[in-house]
Amino acid sequence: MGQTLTEKILDDHLVEGELETGEEIGIEIDQVLTQDTTGTMVWLQFEAMGLDNVQTELAAQYCDHQTYQFDFKNTDDHRFLRSAAGTYGAHFSRPGNGICHNVHRENFAAPGKTLLGSDSHTPTPGGLGELAIGAGGIDITVAMGGAPYYIEMPEVVNVRLEGELPDWATAKDVILELLRRLSVKGGVGKILEYTGPGVETLTAPERMTITNMGTELGATTSIFPTDEQTQDYLERVGRAEEYVELQPDEDAEYDDEIVVDLSDLEPLIAQPSMPDNVVPVREVAGTDVDQVILGSCTNGGYEDILPGAKMLEGREVDKKTDMIVAPGSKQASEILARQGWVAEMMAAGVNFSEATCGACIGIGHVPASDSVSLRTFNRNFEGRSGIEDDNVYLCSPEVATAAAIAGEIVDPRDLSDELDDLEAPGVELPEEYDASKTDLISPDEAVDDELVKGPNIGDVPLKDSLDSNLAGPTLLKMEDNITTDHIIPATQDILMYRSNVPKLSEFTLSRIDETFADRALEADGGFLVAGENYGQGSSREHAALCPMYLGVEGVLAQSFARIHKANLFNFGLIPLTIDEDTYEQIEQGDDVEIVDDVAEAVKSGQEEFTVRVNDDWEATAHLDASERERDILAAGGKLAHTKAQAESGDSPAPADD
Amino acid sequence: MGQTLTEKILDDHLVEGELETGEEIGIEIDQVLTQDTTGTMVWLQFEAMGLDNVQTELAAQYCDHQTYQFDFKNTDDHRFLRSAAGTYGAHFSRPGNGICHNVHRENFAAPGKTLLGSDSHTPTPGGLGELAIGAGGIDITVAMGGAPYYIEMPEVVNVRLEGELPDWATAKDVILELLRRLSVKGGVGKILEYTGPGVETLTAPERMTITNMGTELGATTSIFPTDEQTQDYLERVGRAEEYVELQPDEDAEYDDEIVVDLSDLEPLIAQPSMPDNVVPVREVAGTDVDQVILGSCTNGGYEDILPGAKMLEGREVDKKTDMIVAPGSKQASEILARQGWVAEMMAAGVNFSEATCGACIGIGHVPASDSVSLRTFNRNFEGRSGIEDDNVYLCSPEVATAAAIAGEIVDPRDLSDELDDLEAPGVELPEEYDASKTDLISPDEAVDDELVKGPNIGDVPLKDSLDSNLAGPTLLKMEDNITTDHIIPATQDILMYRSNVPKLSEFTLSRIDETFADRALEADGGFLVAGENYGQGSSREHAALCPMYLGVEGVLAQSFARIHKANLFNFGLIPLTIDEDTYEQIEQGDDVEIVDDVAEAVKSGQEEFTVRVNDDWEATAHLDASERERDILAAGGKLAHTKAQAESGDSPAPADD
Repeated sequence: MGQTLTEKILDDHLVEGELETGEEIGIEIDQVLTQDTTGTMVWLQFEAMGLDNVQTELAAQYCDHQTYQFDFKNTDDHRFLRSAAGTYGAHFSRPGNGICHNVHRENFAAPGKTLLGSDSHTPTPGGLGELAIGAGGIDITVAMGGAPYYIEMPEVVNVRLEGELPDWATAKDVILELLRRLSVKGGVGKILEYTGPGVETLTAPERMTITNMGTELGATTSIFPTDEQTQDYLERVGRAEEYVELQPDEDAEYDDEIVVDLSDLEPLIAQPSMPDNVVPVREVAGTDVDQVILGSCTNGGYEDILPGAKMLEGREVDKKTDMIVAPGSKQASEILARQGWVAEMMAAGVNFSEATCGACIGIGHVPASDSVSLRTFNRNFEGRSGIEDDNVYLCSPEVATAAAIAGEIVDPRDLSDELDDLEAPGVELPEEYDASKTDLISPDEAVDDELVKGPNIGDVPLKDSLDSNLAGPTLLKMEDNITTDHIIPATQDILMYRSNVPKLSEFTLSRIDETFADRALEADGGFLVAGENYGQGSSREHAALCPMYLGVEGVLAQSFARIHKANLFNFGLIPLTIDEDTYEQIEQGDDVEIVDDVAEAVKSGQEEFTVRVNDDWEATAHLDASERERDILAAGGKLAHTKAQAESGDSPAPADD
Repeated sequence: MGQTLTEKILDDHLVEGELETGEEIGIEIDQVLTQDTTGTMVWLQFEAMGLDNVQTELAAQYCDHQTYQFDFKNTDDHRFLRSAAGTYGAHFSRPGNGICHNVHRENFAAPGKTLLGSDSHTPTPGGLGELAIGAGGIDITVAMGGAPYYIEMPEVVNVRLEGELPDWATAKDVILELLRRLSVKGGVGKILEYTGPGVETLTAPERMTITNMGTELGATTSIFPTDEQTQDYLERVGRAEEYVELQPDEDAEYDDEIVVDLSDLEPLIAQPSMPDNVVPVREVAGTDVDQVILGSCTNGGYEDILPGAKMLEGREVDKKTDMIVAPGSKQASEILARQGWVAEMMAAGVNFSEATCGACIGIGHVPASDSVSLRTFNRNFEGRSGIEDDNVYLCSPEVATAAAIAGEIVDPRDLSDELDDLEAPGVELPEEYDASKTDLISPDEAVDDELVKGPNIGDVPLKDSLDSNLAGPTLLKMEDNITTDHIIPATQDILMYRSNVPKLSEFTLSRIDETFADRALEADGGFLVAGENYGQGSSREHAALCPMYLGVEGVLAQSFARIHKANLFNFGLIPLTIDEDTYEQIEQGDDVEIVDDVAEAVKSGQEEFTVRVNDDWEATAHLDASERERDILAAGGKLAHTKAQAESGDSPAPADD
């Protein structure tokens, strides 16, 4: 049986498991990327692992989310990230140099490689035939430590493209059409592999608009085959030698197939407040528009800004509409500036901004209350723009620019009928992506050789391997359905300490009991007790990391939310299931002892543990864990586990893992 | 006796008083400017006055401080300001179009005119021979209402310039030299008038760097005569017809004279953390530099950025130094972009930002902790950059750029010796300031004809004229030395409501008594009682406006701080002085009645008032007020007073005022 392109790349990187849908596989990671909001914890964890150098072929640290640096903590974070990149051998992209996905695709993305990134839009280079997956911070850390990345083998779906895009329809409309059809859950557990005769009609940057926003389908990743378009792009960015031809076998079998005829597409728009709330632009034409923003990792390339610039040439942004252009990379800005387009856009009334994620994550250019904003971004979740009850629409640069000119939503085909000389700008790549790379500091040029930590950057503790004896007080008894927001509140006044575990830990479970953190630190050990569904909600790792920092040894709960349970393993806290009677009987303050030799029992696969309470009564608790989870738990968590593997020379593909 | 240039312009605008040092004069205002942090209150007050249109020749509303719009309140403010400008007939400069002083000088500043602005660097167009003064928000409001501006006639100091600047010395070094000599208090109560043969060697933009930063001397304003340089600048900005020749009489007499020989100057730098902490650059050479920022209203013009761009051509910013360029206006950005300089700067490693005040006021690009930042700005007060214990140096664009290239502070003369082809860039004006004006919306192009208020923008109440009977409870009895920070705290969480008087008023005196605001609103009238020096500290007008909103009628205190007392008149609250015995005897909750016909007594010049307490005992209180202050108080405050004048046709130069 032939292989899909996905299977070929996975096969090439497989270190554990088999490529069967739903089975856990371990794959070798070639490249990692991190950005500034997730990067600090990644590097603090890497420091805690104690390794000297990044083990992957390439690691790149970008500064893109907080580039406005409106708090010294942001600036300190950037300085720390530069020092970490220098110290451990990663590339460092300065604040202002652009969004991680854009800079990565311009400089490093390569066909056939695997990329793991601590940002959900990591799949972007799928448009170049790279298998690129977004993951949590600790996954990046351990990948940099040389360990494989583990994932359940997703379904591979064939998205067959036919025909060719008509004038004014764009790559953005391809992904909006898929969102319209499949919804934001339609890609969960799937890899979308693009095939068919329509593929060759799309340039590499257009493909990357599609793979970038595939994230909004919930897909694990999206990928295109490579061909002359890929080769052409790599030549223009000066990396022709990295081209590899990659195609699925002709007899490859897919789990599902979707057909999109490009020639049927027209300008589409996602209405507030979900990326799949998609309609033809004409359905909402006439809506007044207060703000237009062109940019982001989805549509912030040179090829995305240029159509807007061409449409604005000799025209003006409507007086009642503000238009901001924030390119995805300084490379794009520099080329556009060199060609005169930046001046043209400014003359038309554009506020030309730094290259930043910025407004896409509510940092800057927050819409006015009760106003309409059209953006070329990938997400319009309610409140994401920085104001509740926002009205954010997502569309192509062409639709956005048409709205800026008209002051209202308008199908660019209709605007083109109204205005003389407004022609579809089409897609144009620069002859050569000829821009300075001075803001991308390679490991060879590193400025720092040791970590520079501002006062808001703390150390991350590494847990010791699991003890044979686990005993301590019941520090807190909680109800059913405790969320990770209860464990670590996500409000800005608290999350600003995300790089400072000691400080952040002070807020652990404070919504339930303000004295908890102090008591836990003092007890230096002990357990949490909870009812059903403990740890539901956001996947944030701090909800396991902070209790670990405070010395908590384990959690006894009637049941656990899936992701939080994985995080408990990752940070070395034992998650034990208890029955309702035990839950009812055990009280806060009770002394708990796990009678078994815990370390041995965990390693050996034992499922039942005896819990002795107050030296008075006993109950049975259950550990439900895979072999890999048991190894991680026994080692003291994923970092300790990876460190041990690396030190024993088992990394990156340990046979016994 | 001949006249100084200052006297000539004042004479031309004089509507009251005589031009004798220390005497109060009233002058007609031709132009006003406001920016976004002070503008909302100006326009809310203008609305409260009830006039249909701005009465000055020209009013301009700029959006420059909060252009990053990282909160919807900023964006709402900008929308409100656009609607106010449209409704009342002012020019509106969009966010991103630049800093008020830069855009004003490019578009409106004209020799011989008077300008009043609600920003301390309003004196900038003094370099074009305009008499430009910074003032409080309410002063701008009443000037827009057509009333004169009152000021004590300052001393006029002759700053005689001789010689010519050598290579690498700049206009910035002229004002730094004056700060070195005179200190930040050296200009208080003075107007600095520049004369001498050195004047003609300075272009108009250079002169405006000097007049802009004259504010740091504490000067009322600074002014240059007009000549061929002025004419040349006005021609290049397309306003040649506005040229007027203005020179002091040859026999003009000045209160003082300072001589600066330009040819003696060398590159200077103000060390942390005061603009007068000035030394030659060579004294601090070798200090590592983390951040360099080129921009601001002092050095953000085309003429200021261009030298930096030339110095960077073919070079790179040091890897350990971040360099940000934030031009003063989009006009500057557009011309630099059109000429290719923006691309050059980006290629050198510059993070090219929007045109904004931004970092100068701690909004964006906050330095990292324990780091050094070199900025071409005008102020380096500790903490102004957004972080306590900052190390901000002030210098010319040439010195800043040299530091960015070297990664450390270096005298550009020395750097030029080290590097081939690094020559002094000199000063160069563009042939023509040829840039779009689409972001400057004239009253004719106005988008709005009614006010648009977001939920954080409240109304400002207008007080009725003073009652004949004033009576009510003693709402609060306070100690000595109550500051305006006690009255309205200046913390960000409270001041974010500065455009929302009803909301802000809830915090009135809350640091002393949290129940105060509720009690005052409920009482609907009453008095504050305080000891010595009531209202010391910041000049903020909200400290009078908020008590007024809550219904407070007057303050009985042993003594008043000068500025706050003026603010009490401006907002229609009667400030009465009581003796220590009365202070001791009166208790919170006591009923107070002013026995006299208060309205009549105030108007008639009466100084002693009888206060009856609890219908039980009496004391004497004193009103110390000028005739003008009595008129304002009787009218119900400055706004009500101006409104009444405008309605009676007495404005702008009422004979009986």
